[in-house]
Amino acid sequence: MNDDTDERLSEPALAALATAALRALGLSAADASLAASILVLADLFGIGTHGVSRIVSYGDRLRIGGIDPAPEIRIEQVAPSLIRVDGANGVGTLVGRRALDAAMQAARSTGMAAAFVRGSNHFGPIAPYCHLAAEAGFATIIAGNATTTITPWGGRDARLGNNPIGFGMPRPGGDPVILDMALSVAARAKIRRAHERGEPIPPDWATDADGHPTTDAASALKGFLLPIGGHKGYGLALMVDLFAGLLSGASYLTHVSSWQDDPDKPQDLGHVFMLIDVAKLMPQDTRRARLDDFAAILHATPAAVPERPVRLPGEIEYERMHRQRSEGISIPARLAAQLREIADGRAAT
Amino acid sequence: MNDDTDERLSEPALAALATAALRALGLSAADASLAASILVLADLFGIGTHGVSRIVSYGDRLRIGGIDPAPEIRIEQVAPSLIRVDGANGVGTLVGRRALDAAMQAARSTGMAAAFVRGSNHFGPIAPYCHLAAEAGFATIIAGNATTTITPWGGRDARLGNNPIGFGMPRPGGDPVILDMALSVAARAKIRRAHERGEPIPPDWATDADGHPTTDAASALKGFLLPIGGHKGYGLALMVDLFAGLLSGASYLTHVSSWQDDPDKPQDLGHVFMLIDVAKLMPQDTRRARLDDFAAILHATPAAVPERPVRLPGEIEYERMHRQRSEGISIPARLAAQLREIADGRAAT
Repeated sequence: MNDDTDERLSEPALAALATAALRALGLSAADASLAASILVLADLFGIGTHGVSRIVSYGDRLRIGGIDPAPEIRIEQVAPSLIRVDGANGVGTLVGRRALDAAMQAARSTGMAAAFVRGSNHFGPIAPYCHLAAEAGFATIIAGNATTTITPWGGRDARLGNNPIGFGMPRPGGDPVILDMALSVAARAKIRRAHERGEPIPPDWATDADGHPTTDAASALKGFLLPIGGHKGYGLALMVDLFAGLLSGASYLTHVSSWQDDPDKPQDLGHVFMLIDVAKLMPQDTRRARLDDFAAILHATPAAVPERPVRLPGEIEYERMHRQRSEGISIPARLAAQLREIADGRAAT
Repeated sequence: MNDDTDERLSEPALAALATAALRALGLSAADASLAASILVLADLFGIGTHGVSRIVSYGDRLRIGGIDPAPEIRIEQVAPSLIRVDGANGVGTLVGRRALDAAMQAARSTGMAAAFVRGSNHFGPIAPYCHLAAEAGFATIIAGNATTTITPWGGRDARLGNNPIGFGMPRPGGDPVILDMALSVAARAKIRRAHERGEPIPPDWATDADGHPTTDAASALKGFLLPIGGHKGYGLALMVDLFAGLLSGASYLTHVSSWQDDPDKPQDLGHVFMLIDVAKLMPQDTRRARLDDFAAILHATPAAVPERPVRLPGEIEYERMHRQRSEGISIPARLAAQLREIADGRAAT
C-alpha cells in the first residue's frame, strides 16, 4: 500500500471509525460521536484537509493536555436570543456542535438567535454547521477567529487570523446554498506548492516580510497572507474577530495561541453562530419558488468560458456529498490506518 | 461662485435644509426629518456621494411617481426577534431608519433581532445606521441589494448588485468600529476616472463585455465590475441578495429595476438589519478594556510605509465627523443652492 492509495468507507463506517478514535483519545461516547459528526460531514463535502484527518493533530494535543478530552462545557442563555458558551478547552467540533444545537433551540423559539463561544479549539470547516442548520430550516452566519497569519492592512506583522466565515440558506426541495471561506485571497498551502514548483505567485496573494506585495513564493512564505479586496478583507477579518473573539469572551488577535507552536496550551478560540428560522419569514412554497428562480437566473448566465458554467456556492460540495453517500467516502488509506491505530490505542506517542 | 466652491453648514442647518427639501418634495415633517438624518450623517462622515446630494435624484423620482412621498410603511413582528417591513416604495433612508428603530426595540427585548425589508429604495450608505445602533449599544450586520453591475463568477452578464454590507461594534468611551463596503474591488466611478485620464486599470477591477479581466478602462466600462476575492466576493454578494432580497420578500438579482434606466418604476430593493444588544453579553467595563486592547494591538503594528500607520475601519470617517461637528459640514455650494431651490419649490422640472 503506497501513500497515494485511497480507501472508500461508507458514511456510517467512517463515523464509527472517527468516533472510536476520539473515544480512544479520552472523549465520552456521546462527545466523540458529536465531535466526529462535523468531521465526517467535511469529508463528505470533499474538504479532506478539515475532515477526519484532523483527529491526528487533535490527538497530539489531547495526549499532552493541550485539549481537554472531558470538558465541562457551559451553556448559558443570557437573553431569549443570546447564548454564551464556554467550551472549557474541549475539542472544537464538539464545542461547535453543542453551540449550534443551543442556538437552534433558541432561534426556533424567538425566530433568531446567536451563540457566542469562547474557550474552544479548531472547529473544523464551517460548511457542516451551515448544512445541519439548513436541514433544520435555519439560515446561518457562522464565523470563527484563528491563529494570526494576516497583517493588518498597511502593516508588516501577523496580527489577524485568516478568520473563516460561512453563510447558509436552506432550499426547500433542494440542496442548501452554502458559502464557507477564509478571508485571505489564497491559502498558505498554495504558496508552498508554488514554491516547491519554483513558480511565481499572483501579486495579490501575499506580502514579503516587510509588508510589500510580492510575486516571489519564497519571500511570501516569510511574509503575510493578503486579505481579499485589500482593506476590505482586512476589515472583514477584523470584524469576525470582534464578533467571534472579543464579544464572545475568547482570546483575539495576537492573544490566540498557535496549535502548532504551542500545542500544549489552550487556544481559547472564539466562534459565533447566528441563526434565523426562515419559516417564520415566508411560507415554504413561496421560498421554494423564489429560490428555484434565483438559482435559475444565475445558472442561465452566459459563461465566459463555455465549458465552465456559472455555479452557486456549495454546489460542487453537495455533488461530492451525494456521490460519496452512494459510492462511499474516499480517504487516504494511510489516514484510515492511522485512525485505526489510534482507535486501537496503538498510536500513543 | 464657481462649481468648485464649498459651503460650510452646521449640522442642524444642514439637517434643516435637507428636511425642508424633502418636505417640499411631498414628505411629511416627521418622515422628512427621519429620511434626512441618515443623509446628514453620511455627509458628517465625509461620504458626500451618499449624503444630501442624493435628495436631487430622490426628487427626480418623487416628482414622477417613481418613489412614493407618503408611503404607508408596514412593520410586522412575525416572531419576538424577527420583523418584516414593507417600505411601500418610500424614500429608502426613511424606510431604513424605521426598520432600524423597529429592530432596536426587538433586540433590546430579546438580545438579538433582525428586520427584513422589502419595497424600499436607495437607503444611503450603511455607516450611519451602524453608528446610530452603536450609540444605542448594538452591534450590527446590515446589508442591502442593488441594481445589477456584477457578473456571477465565470459569467458575462450583470446579474448581481454591488451589494453593500456593513458591520458595527459599539465601543464604550470611544468611537464605534464601523466597516461599510460594497463588494466590488473598485467602484465604477474609479474606472470612469481612469478612462478620462487615459490610464490603464489594475487587472482585478473589471472584465470586458465577454467576461474576461481587462486593464483597458474603455473595455471595462463596457464590461462588469469584479468582486473582491473573485469567487469569494461573488459568493458574498450572492449571500447578501439571499438574505436582504430573497428572504425579505423584495426583488432580487435581475428583478431589481434600475433607478437610472427606469426612474418611474418602484425598485423594490431589500435590506436586512441584524442587531445584537452587547450589554447582555459582557459588562461594559470588560468590553471597554478589551476594545481598548484590541485597538492598541492593531495600532501598534509596524507599518509597511512608516508615514501610513495601521488604522481601524471607520477611524477616518469618525475623524471627519468630529472635525465637521465643530467646524461645520462642507458641501458643494452648487448643491446647497440646488437644495434651497428644491426647498423653495423652485426646482420642479
